[in-house]
Amino acid sequence: MVSVGVLGLGLVGGSVARALRRAGVDVVGFDAVPATRVAARAAGLSVTDDVASLCRTAPDVLVLAVPLRAVRPVAAEVARHVGGPTVVTDVGSVKSAVRDAVEAAGLGERYVGAHPMAGTERSGFAASSEDLLDGAHWAVTVGPTTRADALVRVLGLLTGALGGTVHVLTDEVHDEAAALVSHVPHVLATELLGVVADAPVRDVALALAAGSFRDTTRVARTDARRTEAMVTDNAAWVAAGLRVVVRDLERLALALETNAGVAPFFDRPDPVRQVVRPDSTHRTEHRVVLDEQGEWRTTLTGLGARGAVVVRVQDDAVHVV
Amino acid sequence: MVSVGVLGLGLVGGSVARALRRAGVDVVGFDAVPATRVAARAAGLSVTDDVASLCRTAPDVLVLAVPLRAVRPVAAEVARHVGGPTVVTDVGSVKSAVRDAVEAAGLGERYVGAHPMAGTERSGFAASSEDLLDGAHWAVTVGPTTRADALVRVLGLLTGALGGTVHVLTDEVHDEAAALVSHVPHVLATELLGVVADAPVRDVALALAAGSFRDTTRVARTDARRTEAMVTDNAAWVAAGLRVVVRDLERLALALETNAGVAPFFDRPDPVRQVVRPDSTHRTEHRVVLDEQGEWRTTLTGLGARGAVVVRVQDDAVHVV
Repeated sequence: MVSVGVLGLGLVGGSVARALRRAGVDVVGFDAVPATRVAARAAGLSVTDDVASLCRTAPDVLVLAVPLRAVRPVAAEVARHVGGPTVVTDVGSVKSAVRDAVEAAGLGERYVGAHPMAGTERSGFAASSEDLLDGAHWAVTVGPTTRADALVRVLGLLTGALGGTVHVLTDEVHDEAAALVSHVPHVLATELLGVVADAPVRDVALALAAGSFRDTTRVARTDARRTEAMVTDNAAWVAAGLRVVVRDLERLALALETNAGVAPFFDRPDPVRQVVRPDSTHRTEHRVVLDEQGEWRTTLTGLGARGAVVVRVQDDAVHVV
Repeated sequence: MVSVGVLGLGLVGGSVARALRRAGVDVVGFDAVPATRVAARAAGLSVTDDVASLCRTAPDVLVLAVPLRAVRPVAAEVARHVGGPTVVTDVGSVKSAVRDAVEAAGLGERYVGAHPMAGTERSGFAASSEDLLDGAHWAVTVGPTTRADALVRVLGLLTGALGGTVHVLTDEVHDEAAALVSHVPHVLATELLGVVADAPVRDVALALAAGSFRDTTRVARTDARRTEAMVTDNAAWVAAGLRVVVRDLERLALALETNAGVAPFFDRPDPVRQVVRPDSTHRTEHRVVLDEQGEWRTTLTGLGARGAVVVRVQDDAVHVV
């Protein structure tokens, strides 16, 4: 079984480390905050006191689980100490930006991107848990230079010890999808709170707010700086999504102001209901051979973009359904 | 104790009827759908077979609990049969529009507006329950011609047998507040689903969607026609809210496209955290006498707009805190 280093023991990093320990994986962590290291050791985790020591444990996989805005300096420090066959992955919510940072640090050839779709509005090691990621969907991203052996090792870890459902994607497909189902929703929730905050009827509006308002604004109740970092690191896709939203809402506002019909706005299909998810036993299993020419990158990410998930990982092939 | 008629036994009407029966109130219902009448009787409720028979039971309070788009014809039919001292109220989510319909039917002088801030994404009698409204906040709205005795009777029912927390407001304050914490959030949730439905990465985006997306779009998963009716009946306030949203999102999109700072968007205060709700024992109790001149209307709705709730109802006065 692989050994794993986890750099950053916040909500996601802490949960990765705890889940791996539960699965019996040899895992060592580090966090820049001394109090977090104390808490992680108290929780039974093995923790080093600096990045260099973590890298010197020569883990098979090193998971960068630091905030997006810290990836660049942390990657640079890792590059000074990491060696041998260590594969580097991460948990960041924007993949193109992380790849840029990791490549700038010279870690590109040992890097495979990863992003678990799970979280809570809380943060920090205290909020982490060994079951936060149970059953989570992960995006794993590959670029033109991703090594097949590095991909196999990361896929093995995520689908094995971490029990995740993995979609292999390009950075671009991940970042567009994340903009639509995560970053733009965070922006709209933030905006809803902002509109109420500025309204003359603010106090009574909040008193009257029922569950639907609390549900729709829950994600805005996280660290605003974290949301800002996701949005700015994925600026192009978020801006494109917002332009669509602005166009549609402007049309709706105009229709309401002029007493015109608004049915087209409400008649759009509900994509959640629309997408039929066939039972996996009725879907075709594809065996994608990890060929030297690297055509597997296009094949795997093409299948991933259409919803395929990894069901089996071999040294020379990945099976998706 | 008062007797109550409930016209319309869907999610809210059914829940009102069940809660009143649990409280021992003499309650009779009616629904235009025969199958709903059968189900309501099977659930132990007393149900008439037409509106005329319901009105002839001469309830102290008649609750119109029909969809917004049905209020106008139903109010006209009630006007033909209602008599004596029956007070008419409702549960509609837009108060100005309901008042217009009720006044057009000639029921204005016996009408007091009401709107419980509770619901689920389900609808119909089968989804109703005797505890749906437990602890709910209610908006009760009064206009220039609202009778003091009618208000007292409705307040007594809502704060008594139904155990609600009641805010006395003008229609306008209610409708602006409801636009901000209910109708605009419904529109944004609908838009989020629409944007994903049209995206090339739709399938993988939905597969990756974590809890935050499901939470933020849950309210769009209701009856689209019901949402459309709320939005069009409250068109002016919803359009005004949407114009603010469009302005803010356009600024954010431009900032992201030009690599400008976006901190102002994320630095706005969270109104939910900002509003300090002092314990009611530390707030001033106001006794508003229901004077002949009708100044109580301005006093009560002014206090309500600042967050005051009803704590005691007497024949000649309402206490709010």
